[in-house]
Amino acid sequence: MVKTIELVDGVVKMLDQTKLPREVIYVDCIDYYMVAEGIKKLWIRGAPAIGIATAMGIAIGAQEIRAENFDDFIKGLEPVFNTLLSTRPTAVNIQWAVNRTKQLLSEKRDESIDKLKALLIDEANRVLAEDIEINKTIGAWGAGFIKDGDTVITHCNAGSLATGGYGTATGPIRAAVEQGKKIQVVADETRPVLQGCRLTAWELMEDNIPVTLITDNTAGALLQKGEINLAIVGTDRTAANGDVANKIGTYSLAVLCKENRVPFYVAAPLSSIDFAMSSGDLIPIEERGPEEVTSIFGCRIAPEGVKVRNIAFDVTPARYVTGIITEKGVFRPEDLHKLNIKDADLNAIMMRAEESHS
Amino acid sequence: MVKTIELVDGVVKMLDQTKLPREVIYVDCIDYYMVAEGIKKLWIRGAPAIGIATAMGIAIGAQEIRAENFDDFIKGLEPVFNTLLSTRPTAVNIQWAVNRTKQLLSEKRDESIDKLKALLIDEANRVLAEDIEINKTIGAWGAGFIKDGDTVITHCNAGSLATGGYGTATGPIRAAVEQGKKIQVVADETRPVLQGCRLTAWELMEDNIPVTLITDNTAGALLQKGEINLAIVGTDRTAANGDVANKIGTYSLAVLCKENRVPFYVAAPLSSIDFAMSSGDLIPIEERGPEEVTSIFGCRIAPEGVKVRNIAFDVTPARYVTGIITEKGVFRPEDLHKLNIKDADLNAIMMRAEESHS
Repeated sequence: MVKTIELVDGVVKMLDQTKLPREVIYVDCIDYYMVAEGIKKLWIRGAPAIGIATAMGIAIGAQEIRAENFDDFIKGLEPVFNTLLSTRPTAVNIQWAVNRTKQLLSEKRDESIDKLKALLIDEANRVLAEDIEINKTIGAWGAGFIKDGDTVITHCNAGSLATGGYGTATGPIRAAVEQGKKIQVVADETRPVLQGCRLTAWELMEDNIPVTLITDNTAGALLQKGEINLAIVGTDRTAANGDVANKIGTYSLAVLCKENRVPFYVAAPLSSIDFAMSSGDLIPIEERGPEEVTSIFGCRIAPEGVKVRNIAFDVTPARYVTGIITEKGVFRPEDLHKLNIKDADLNAIMMRAEESHS
Repeated sequence: MVKTIELVDGVVKMLDQTKLPREVIYVDCIDYYMVAEGIKKLWIRGAPAIGIATAMGIAIGAQEIRAENFDDFIKGLEPVFNTLLSTRPTAVNIQWAVNRTKQLLSEKRDESIDKLKALLIDEANRVLAEDIEINKTIGAWGAGFIKDGDTVITHCNAGSLATGGYGTATGPIRAAVEQGKKIQVVADETRPVLQGCRLTAWELMEDNIPVTLITDNTAGALLQKGEINLAIVGTDRTAANGDVANKIGTYSLAVLCKENRVPFYVAAPLSSIDFAMSSGDLIPIEERGPEEVTSIFGCRIAPEGVKVRNIAFDVTPARYVTGIITEKGVFRPEDLHKLNIKDADLNAIMMRAEESHS
């Protein structure tokens, strides 16, 4: 499996995903500012992956800080936090990584500055390693909802490239394949940035998982014909009420699934669930420039001067979501908030695979 | 307004729409075979426009036939009919143009061969002229359903480029603008061939009608936000029961409109209604090669060797259609079949604009 991101000798090496599948090029980000640029310019994307990039950006940013005491060290980190937080508004994982770092530092405030710098490097590597483990656990839970012979549709890329590895939405797919189930994947190409075409189809082909590429417009027709058994997508931020922000077009896919009685699952590590946000309406939605719509790989497709609306994400209301696959199990969206309650009996509310395929 | 197609001195001049909006190039089709190639390769597309191209292809094909009597002339026309009929299966207008020609010839079978050849040229020009008139009538009926200040979404291109001029789905839009209504158009880019981006946005900009280009994935989000007041699309073939075959993605848009209580209209000249087909399930749906999905303007976007499903059209069941705008008025899909009943009281069943916006 291709590596999305790693931290080597104080340098964040990230695969430039904007060039895939034409070129496999790693960019060396030598400072936190360059990591932030990479997030903004989509060299790296996918909520978990940009959470990891944030932790790594903080770690290398911290090494440059000259501080005599803890308070000065934290003060020195503020521009690092703020630069990374300002890159992309929708994915909660950036905030999550910043909060996790702050929490760690507040617990270790009595350590030396050099020790703190070393701890932040360790922490960034731990975020990466944990992410892969979480995705494998998501995979194990989710695979129970995929039957031998099923065709799974996915939107955008919530694969290994969107994470430390293994993928969130692709987790259950990979686990089902490992269990010997013969399954097919249908990948929405996912305009405008074509992550489904350029990334999901590519990484599944690399791993010999059968995949068919379609335009986003074709999903409805395949659902209508009964050729799709279930949908699994990722999420950039899921609200406590189970509303799911994800790549533009996810809402449409969810509506089409519901209309055709096809179960619609969201693979969501806890890092992407914003328990502080009561409803999806409150999730900030990024709008991006027109170029992603008017040009593809530098090739102009639209009339000069055309007005464009390029909304990067949409919110799928919880009522369209069959289940949310987390590292703690699969839950109905209305039960999601219980994961934030200490000592809640999750086993009692967990969805069983038998309930899913109606 | 740009000319889509015309018949000049025995040559069919068609705008090569695959090159728009980058280049405005007319191709001289000097024989019927080249007209058929133009239809297959999408130099010309849109159900009414390929109906016109068919009539013109027959007309120039007929000029080459050496026949002494009517039966030999008809025999000589058979390969012309068959070549044109074999180009694209979904739009009924090719069949319609062939049938119309056959009908004319059977009525004029006592005329000389030279006279018949001249009549076919006249007939092709008449099909073109009538088409523009029909679209203006569709525009006049449909404009009553567009209110001042409305935002109209459309999919693919059912504009002047898809017709002899004025357009079917753009007919009501143009008529509303002519009535002084301030309206906005949102154009789905319409992957894979990008007719919404390359053609609809372009022709509306040429005519100074405000248009915003979006990816197909964005339509759902705008509908969900309440930013769209109605949808109007064209059709390649509408069955007698009101099921509508149109460009892939139309079904998805219709489902999303229904989910968000936004009226969904289909602009359908009678030439695109197949009264002999009882249900949309029976409409032949064209599947095309993978290149349209894997490359754009010759620029490769997908991984080499990826499996692709490229379904060119889908069928929107009548239950998602608010009204069908024809040159005889606007009708509920369930009433459509009555247009084929002689002396039916259409006035009694016609939809009124007041009933539409709920």
